[in-house]
Amino acid sequence: MSNMSKKLLIDVDCGVDDAQAIMIALAARNVQVLGITCVQGNTAVENVCKNVLRVLSVCGQLKIPVFKGASKPILGVPIDAGHFHGQDGLGDAPDPNAPGLELLQEEGAVQALVRIVNQHPGEVSLVATAPLTNLALAVRIDPTISQKLKELYIMGGNTESRGNTTTCAEFNFACDPEAAYIVLNDYLCPTYIACWEFTCRSKLPWEFCKDWLAQDTKKARFMSQIFKHSIDACKTKRIDTALVAGQGFIPCDAYALAAAIDDTFILESDELPVTVELSGTHTRGMMVVDTLDTLKKTHKATIMKKVDLEKFKQMLMDSLK
Amino acid sequence: MSNMSKKLLIDVDCGVDDAQAIMIALAARNVQVLGITCVQGNTAVENVCKNVLRVLSVCGQLKIPVFKGASKPILGVPIDAGHFHGQDGLGDAPDPNAPGLELLQEEGAVQALVRIVNQHPGEVSLVATAPLTNLALAVRIDPTISQKLKELYIMGGNTESRGNTTTCAEFNFACDPEAAYIVLNDYLCPTYIACWEFTCRSKLPWEFCKDWLAQDTKKARFMSQIFKHSIDACKTKRIDTALVAGQGFIPCDAYALAAAIDDTFILESDELPVTVELSGTHTRGMMVVDTLDTLKKTHKATIMKKVDLEKFKQMLMDSLK
Amino acid sequence: MSNMSKKLLIDVDCGVDDAQAIMIALAARNVQVLGITCVQGNTAVENVCKNVLRVLSVCGQLKIPVFKGASKPILGVPIDAGHFHGQDGLGDAPDPNAPGLELLQEEGAVQALVRIVNQHPGEVSLVATAPLTNLALAVRIDPTISQKLKELYIMGGNTESRGNTTTCAEFNFACDPEAAYIVLNDYLCPTYIACWEFTCRSKLPWEFCKDWLAQDTKKARFMSQIFKHSIDACKTKRIDTALVAGQGFIPCDAYALAAAIDDTFILESDELPVTVELSGTHTRGMMVVDTLDTLKKTHKATIMKKVDLEKFKQMLMDSLK
Amino acid sequence: MSNMSKKLLIDVDCGVDDAQAIMIALAARNVQVLGITCVQGNTAVENVCKNVLRVLSVCGQLKIPVFKGASKPILGVPIDAGHFHGQDGLGDAPDPNAPGLELLQEEGAVQALVRIVNQHPGEVSLVATAPLTNLALAVRIDPTISQKLKELYIMGGNTESRGNTTTCAEFNFACDPEAAYIVLNDYLCPTYIACWEFTCRSKLPWEFCKDWLAQDTKKARFMSQIFKHSIDACKTKRIDTALVAGQGFIPCDAYALAAAIDDTFILESDELPVTVELSGTHTRGMMVVDTLDTLKKTHKATIMKKVDLEKFKQMLMDSLK
Repeated sequence: MSNMSKKLLIDVDCGVDDAQAIMIALAARNVQVLGITCVQGNTAVENVCKNVLRVLSVCGQLKIPVFKGASKPILGVPIDAGHFHGQDGLGDAPDPNAPGLELLQEEGAVQALVRIVNQHPGEVSLVATAPLTNLALAVRIDPTISQKLKELYIMGGNTESRGNTTTCAEFNFACDPEAAYIVLNDYLCPTYIACWEFTCRSKLPWEFCKDWLAQDTKKARFMSQIFKHSIDACKTKRIDTALVAGQGFIPCDAYALAAAIDDTFILESDELPVTVELSGTHTRGMMVVDTLDTLKKTHKATIMKKVDLEKFKQMLMDSLK
Repeated sequence: MSNMSKKLLIDVDCGVDDAQAIMIALAARNVQVLGITCVQGNTAVENVCKNVLRVLSVCGQLKIPVFKGASKPILGVPIDAGHFHGQDGLGDAPDPNAPGLELLQEEGAVQALVRIVNQHPGEVSLVATAPLTNLALAVRIDPTISQKLKELYIMGGNTESRGNTTTCAEFNFACDPEAAYIVLNDYLCPTYIACWEFTCRSKLPWEFCKDWLAQDTKKARFMSQIFKHSIDACKTKRIDTALVAGQGFIPCDAYALAAAIDDTFILESDELPVTVELSGTHTRGMMVVDTLDTLKKTHKATIMKKVDLEKFKQMLMDSLK
Repeated sequence: MSNMSKKLLIDVDCGVDDAQAIMIALAARNVQVLGITCVQGNTAVENVCKNVLRVLSVCGQLKIPVFKGASKPILGVPIDAGHFHGQDGLGDAPDPNAPGLELLQEEGAVQALVRIVNQHPGEVSLVATAPLTNLALAVRIDPTISQKLKELYIMGGNTESRGNTTTCAEFNFACDPEAAYIVLNDYLCPTYIACWEFTCRSKLPWEFCKDWLAQDTKKARFMSQIFKHSIDACKTKRIDTALVAGQGFIPCDAYALAAAIDDTFILESDELPVTVELSGTHTRGMMVVDTLDTLKKTHKATIMKKVDLEKFKQMLMDSLK
Repeated sequence: MSNMSKKLLIDVDCGVDDAQAIMIALAARNVQVLGITCVQGNTAVENVCKNVLRVLSVCGQLKIPVFKGASKPILGVPIDAGHFHGQDGLGDAPDPNAPGLELLQEEGAVQALVRIVNQHPGEVSLVATAPLTNLALAVRIDPTISQKLKELYIMGGNTESRGNTTTCAEFNFACDPEAAYIVLNDYLCPTYIACWEFTCRSKLPWEFCKDWLAQDTKKARFMSQIFKHSIDACKTKRIDTALVAGQGFIPCDAYALAAAIDDTFILESDELPVTVELSGTHTRGMMVVDTLDTLKKTHKATIMKKVDLEKFKQMLMDSLK
């Protein structure tokens, strides 16, 4: 492994798009995945752990350590998400050869996150594609990690109050608003966010998705199986009305991962202070973009607006090779 | 007055853009202004009343009845807006010949609103370009007006959480969130809304504004005097950062009025259920667009997206002739 | 009617305890009831109006004007209260001879309240034993009444977060938290409050109630019929757990009325600033007593702590004579 | 150490009354203090750690492990409390011989809490006399500790909406409402709470305090020095108005500790479900007692109402011997 490789720590609620993100990371050159931390979100944390192990197994990378994290959001009230990714998070596709949970590390995800960042100060790129519970707990237990991280990439939140889960909130932030608030306010490293409206507007054609899945590889067959449920769900009225700019293939979590492994991926972005609404009736969990500088925050996030979709397609294609 | 004329009732917090809206109404053919009701907002309600009388005086229409309404929002906590339209709401331009408040009707604005709508069931187009306090009080005192109105036109609210007053709220809704909530939920007549982002995206060139004010008429000279303060304010950082799509002449209230007097003005719109966030830390007063149909409301508002700007320019030009 | 008589205006959601309060007022010497305004609360406002007319009819006082007021709380979300006073508010006791609603005044309750207070500046004692919707609307339409009232007596709110309707809120305040907030913050006349815990601790023995109802009069027979439902309801677990200091006869609204007609009724009280919580999950509608003076309010309410129960019994006895 | 000894873990924000509680524990027979965890609250967490070491040093018990915990509440917004216990939490009394922070354990407080409870399942009595941040983080990292604890004793919260820090909230809960919410909802072991009003009503005479401090011992001299600031503060208007039942010596944290070490200390209590208000304007952080069973919680807390004050005096006297 070259000195120049990027050190990635990935925090997931492994759903199908988390799987897509992980597989891009595993296929990337010059990327070292230090570990994968699991948290409840798309499905229960036990399922998340199992799903990550299945992905690693398909990719022949079971040596990457996997850690079990929070089984509940900060305030303890979970949201059911089974209608989209399936009850098990990976499309409820049978998998008789799934690895067992005995492969998990004994160390908890939050403790591992704190330890790994401290072991590689200034070097770790943290990619969070899930409710931010693990990250929030970690920074409360060890506030110093906020500045020891090299950078943070998040899939979550929204910029124009378009909700996909509640009226005004995106799924990852809606699942744990307090965690999102803590992360956006206490992680002071460079922070890049792939928000819901951005991912919708950066959708790929379903035609591309078809070609992508049609590759004659073990990984592509695995992806076809686990993705079927979500593809069908996209066509339902419930999901269709949530889409901002019409139908298409939107591998949400993969945008954050792609940005983390290729510094030239983001073509346009806004640098603005952000936070999260915690107490609204309709807006709880909504990301708040402080364009008026009302909050007088010094830290600003990089909000992705346009990315290199040709590079993205190539990363996706490579990830199933 | 022809049978075909539109019967308008206008509720204002007369500000400069309210004045622009009123003057469009007064210049329009086939429009009968049944009355103008005043409410605090851009300035104290006494100033609002005086400003309306000044506008009517300049236009030679002092026979239109003017009613004084609420001096406070529903919950009683006003927002200061002097930095934009000036402390007096009309640019703090001296006016030694301003008519006196003795010209106001004795009847209160809320009572007048209830009476007038009941006198012309199914015929009144109500245009509200202010905090919605008067409208909210009226519908609580007489719930039947909600269905006796022909239609309701509102300037206020936002669709993408872009605030111009607080982080996420537009001025008219931020001034009285409860009133906005009551009106959006209890007025069941056809409802058309000109929101903040829409007005920003429908801006006119400053060049047009210059030509508009350069007309050699008494009305144009009046407008030049009262508008100077706001034009200067637009160039300040505070206002500039609030603008959604860059600099330009944005006569907010006039869009709602134009839609009320010309049924062909609106070119594109969305029909969606809307409400208002009342309890958020950053989002109190934000308009909530329920794209996911979470609230199961049967009443939908027409949210303006694109209007006929050539017609708009013509209306504006005519209003100062 | 003597010059020395107290001028009462009574605002009710006529349930059984409102009826008890009204009957005390009607039986009192030196009390002139200027009018009774009705508002939804214990039951729909139409039932409230009918109930007031029934009470006046039984007492031979149909000449007192009755006004119909708000049919909804400020924000429009009513609470069902049928389990306690019965669906019709008066125990669902049949009354074939009930007067018709044609006896109501044409003028609305809010307008009447504003008019009457203005006609008798400094002279009117307003007794409110209902959700405070009418009072809140009135002070927004005419802010001057707040200082033209002689005094205000309220049954509602709580002092120790003991809820009888929601976890932490008393019924009248829970029914319209915004109205309670407006009244406690904008009515600046002397204000006396009979809160939930106080009424519970000032309960009368059921034995007294039995004697009271056993009087051989038309009024006592009427009270027996309408009160049966509530007496039974008091023994249910739902009501029993809401009682602060155990079982007993608690004619809540009558405490406020008694204080209004006899200046020596209150034996102990606290003078403290009060307001209402509007946005809590569990505490919305809870009265807030600002012992720490956090709010820096200059206006203080008189919170009743101990009253003359012997006088109270006498008033009750007299009211059914 | 006998097998019969109680195993205590104490979580403190070591102010003066935490010191009083710790000293009672150290002086008690049959009590084994497994560790003391520190959290910000009365003062910064570094001061808390130093203060605990000073107390242990005075008592000759520096072998008890001390752990540094959270430096911020869950949402990161601390409350300044310097006016009561002094800026350093122990009355700003000079202490040239204070032990250094090098005596702290390397392990963090949250991790230690999780480890110790797991090492002694069913045996640990946890006494929390501080904002509940450490406890909340611990149960999110390891949910199983909630049922492995023997019992939990808390000083914090209130039962009658009497605030001592904000209008309606007690200090420990006001400092970290989310932590209090998490602990009251997720710790399912037997839970005993010494609330603010209870401690006020269980005050001791200042005369006793004088005798207590007058003992001719090193510990009493230490206590006299650190307690002077708080005694003076009690006489100020700010603290005086916060007291529920008048002046007196109220060693708040010591009531929870005393209950933990003596099962006969509590004479009267209520068993009721409790939670915490998170979103109120005036009530954020207020403890909510669900007398109406609105929340349908199965877990109930034991809320102390009356304790054995003679025993309490004896414990206090012994603690300075």
